[in-house]
Amino acid sequence: MQEVICTVDVVLLTLREGVLQVLLHRREREPFAGTLALPGGYVHTDSDRDTRDAALRVLRDKPGVHSPYLEQLATFSGPARDPRGWSISVAYYALVPDTLVTEAADAVLCPVDDLRGVPFDHAQIVASAVQRVRNKSSYSSLPVHVCQEPFTLPQLQAVYEALLGESLNKVSFRRKMDELDVLEAIPGVFSSGSAHRPAQLYRVKPAWRHALSLSERAI
Amino acid sequence: MQEVICTVDVVLLTLREGVLQVLLHRREREPFAGTLALPGGYVHTDSDRDTRDAALRVLRDKPGVHSPYLEQLATFSGPARDPRGWSISVAYYALVPDTLVTEAADAVLCPVDDLRGVPFDHAQIVASAVQRVRNKSSYSSLPVHVCQEPFTLPQLQAVYEALLGESLNKVSFRRKMDELDVLEAIPGVFSSGSAHRPAQLYRVKPAWRHALSLSERAI
Repeated sequence: MQEVICTVDVVLLTLREGVLQVLLHRREREPFAGTLALPGGYVHTDSDRDTRDAALRVLRDKPGVHSPYLEQLATFSGPARDPRGWSISVAYYALVPDTLVTEAADAVLCPVDDLRGVPFDHAQIVASAVQRVRNKSSYSSLPVHVCQEPFTLPQLQAVYEALLGESLNKVSFRRKMDELDVLEAIPGVFSSGSAHRPAQLYRVKPAWRHALSLSERAI
Repeated sequence: MQEVICTVDVVLLTLREGVLQVLLHRREREPFAGTLALPGGYVHTDSDRDTRDAALRVLRDKPGVHSPYLEQLATFSGPARDPRGWSISVAYYALVPDTLVTEAADAVLCPVDDLRGVPFDHAQIVASAVQRVRNKSSYSSLPVHVCQEPFTLPQLQAVYEALLGESLNKVSFRRKMDELDVLEAIPGVFSSGSAHRPAQLYRVKPAWRHALSLSERAI
């Protein structure tokens, strides 16, 4: 039997201009050298502690993103998904505020609904990540990881609405955020520069920066 | 870099005597030959279409289970989980009625809360599967796959209660099953042999035999 090619791929998601976007990286090597694809690479058995560690390394080395909210998505496999041979890709997804993403010639944000010509099964991996994020957003604190801190509650509500693709009732949204209990008001810090009166600014409680709070019912 | 060892492992779960149990298989080969462990094995690049196909092959060959409800759980990896070297195991979980599980010298059911001495990180894989099943059971039709057809609604409710570890209100359970809409009454077929009056017998609608119906709120 031939050896299995073992890689990780990372779906790095953010909101830019209210649209969910994925970071694509221009491939330096064959196969598909020069095309835009998910950042990924081989598992390094000499240095990676596990596939999560490999995914964090890929994010540090390729788009230069450190310590994002990161979860394992699923593993994709088979003889045909990579022209080099029978392969396994352990896919992860990360959510970050768009201020952490720097676009460049070899790193481009692309709306998740407008992916064309990405190689391998990367379109399927992105679709799977988007479905997971939309589903989890309705039951959890996941969207807070897309918000640049500090943020106001209306800003956070807009992020939830963009991820869920629907508008939310302000009162029930605030009740749900109380229930999730992941935010803390920053004492004495209010937004400024808008025509409205200043709004309280919030940040994520330290315990929830890399964990999800789940709710019993959909938001 | 050394080659990555690529395997699949399957957590086959069932209810026996009202207790959630996992099937352990006696290992024929080193490492850990002779000990009870999750059924698993190398990915066969010459015949497996993907890791799901490998998991189905393992279930056919080892406990002799065909076409169960099967989902990918997660991928476990690292340099230390297998003494042979840096390894990846794509783990799946399956749910079956206990009538499909035949115990033998090399195939033993073990209560999920009473696992001792299983090798590798199999205790962690089982714990992860149990958590997934308990969580999904509260929001979905997952437990129907543990019920031997045909079944009565009280029998199905008992399965939900065993998986969730709590008792349920009969009226709200029946409302939830109506909402999930995965059952069909078998026309003219009723249970017999109990002191109570005969109860309608049900089966899972064909469309839901390998898919999950999800509910908006916990059962």
